[in-house]
Amino acid sequence: MKVVYRRSGACKRLLMELWFTENLEIAADMRLQLRVERTIHSEKSEFQKIDVLETTSCGRMLVLDDVIMTTEFDEFAYHEMIAHVPAFAHASPRTALVIGGGDGGTVRELCKHKNLEEIHLCEIDRRVVEVSKEHLPSIASGFDDPRVKCFYEDGARWADEHPESYDLILVDSSDPVGPAAVLFGEAFYESCYASLREGGILATQAENIYMHRDIIERLLQYGEKFYQRRFYYNTRVPTYPGGMIGFTFFAKGQNGPDPFYHLEKRYNESELTAQDFRFWNPATHKAAFALPAFATDLEKYFA
Amino acid sequence: MKVVYRRSGACKRLLMELWFTENLEIAADMRLQLRVERTIHSEKSEFQKIDVLETTSCGRMLVLDDVIMTTEFDEFAYHEMIAHVPAFAHASPRTALVIGGGDGGTVRELCKHKNLEEIHLCEIDRRVVEVSKEHLPSIASGFDDPRVKCFYEDGARWADEHPESYDLILVDSSDPVGPAAVLFGEAFYESCYASLREGGILATQAENIYMHRDIIERLLQYGEKFYQRRFYYNTRVPTYPGGMIGFTFFAKGQNGPDPFYHLEKRYNESELTAQDFRFWNPATHKAAFALPAFATDLEKYFA
Repeated sequence: MKVVYRRSGACKRLLMELWFTENLEIAADMRLQLRVERTIHSEKSEFQKIDVLETTSCGRMLVLDDVIMTTEFDEFAYHEMIAHVPAFAHASPRTALVIGGGDGGTVRELCKHKNLEEIHLCEIDRRVVEVSKEHLPSIASGFDDPRVKCFYEDGARWADEHPESYDLILVDSSDPVGPAAVLFGEAFYESCYASLREGGILATQAENIYMHRDIIERLLQYGEKFYQRRFYYNTRVPTYPGGMIGFTFFAKGQNGPDPFYHLEKRYNESELTAQDFRFWNPATHKAAFALPAFATDLEKYFA
Repeated sequence: MKVVYRRSGACKRLLMELWFTENLEIAADMRLQLRVERTIHSEKSEFQKIDVLETTSCGRMLVLDDVIMTTEFDEFAYHEMIAHVPAFAHASPRTALVIGGGDGGTVRELCKHKNLEEIHLCEIDRRVVEVSKEHLPSIASGFDDPRVKCFYEDGARWADEHPESYDLILVDSSDPVGPAAVLFGEAFYESCYASLREGGILATQAENIYMHRDIIERLLQYGEKFYQRRFYYNTRVPTYPGGMIGFTFFAKGQNGPDPFYHLEKRYNESELTAQDFRFWNPATHKAAFALPAFATDLEKYFA
């Protein structure tokens, strides 16, 4: 993060301009800069650096180890799509686990599903939850729901120790560097399979189809090894690298759901309406699975 | 554009890092930075500053007045979608006009359609075409096709002076500041209507649904005023603001086509196959029209 003093063309005064520059290991030669009003919060937790910045165009922004996690401007496009696509694809989910996701946005979206009875969050860094509750209340608004329980533990171990427990597992992680690296490993995908109930769905944050094909293909290979149904979908988030991010969609069991079979019925029965969403709707749900021509060879992993 | 000297954390040597920083009037507080190897070409033409830079991650990049026009890395996602969506939606296009588009990418894609007999390019700045031919040959590869004719004139006047002439008009413009401002005005949309033949389709570069809603709504209002069929679609281009860009899709006449009616038949008859595309396919064609929930109120302009 650096401060740049620039002469304003219009009024010829010296104005301070404060710019956040993202520092991404997985996209080192393409960086997003956001203009910032001020720092709201900054600390170094046991696991990582945590910053909350007030930006001039994207509201408040959570930054972990110099990487943008979420902004008030576009967080809904990520949180709605990681949560509602699997939640509406499952025949009848009752229990859900979010791994990572300490800002609370994914939990907030899951809470919209009345048929869910238990929503567990397993976040390794308690401070992310606490900072989000204090400084990002519109995102961290689901934690008071009585169905939500938070566990501050290692997500990979949690999945390993809770077999046959969940209908939905959503891995709302940072990138495969730092604390989240283990969530991009084969053993974790095997643990999640064991932790799902029959017919359950695993959706994991799975990067950008233009820029991180190697990572995505590796995750799809794990999918092929353990899961009976396998797809990849994406959403559009302006402040993420390349303006988009994808997810794996892996389902367990010979009768594991595809992303579309239960959609209309489940949506109609949900009592949710267009007003409950800012990105998700049946059209964006379906469109999210359309792969650009250059990536359709990855469909060889689909089933 | 500025040169930043940075101490490399890994090897403790001083390495020169050259970074291009985009300077966008229509997204002033969110900027993309791309690391650059060197400047290939730089000039000030009669109309604008023209730069071609060799980037480290996106190949060569064309920059007009400090704004990214296209990169070798992701240009196909833009050029294929501005060209093939209307070209496959039209019942039987024979003549096409590209306004702007001096890099040649849109013309290159139109040339794939064998039924097109005449492809006109009207670009105000001859130097953009000449620089692209010299330095971006993979993009400017359609200019030798005998069906292509280039006119270096004002696109708005050209449309005005050529009534009932085109089955497709594709407006491959820069943003509504600088030389392209006139292409975002009501009079231009009226001229294009007159310049289309019955059943013809106008597709215009129409910015980002997250960030430029005011511009998009204004264009849809022009559409409502003059065109019988009206839609909006988008594509995903990592180096454009927010990683995506949209297009208006306006058709002329009571029997003007919608985006889907002729698609399968026209694609099957085209002799084109999956190998001819890097982004477009029937799935991305359809998915491109799915609006996020926050923007579906714009469907009131659709018909």
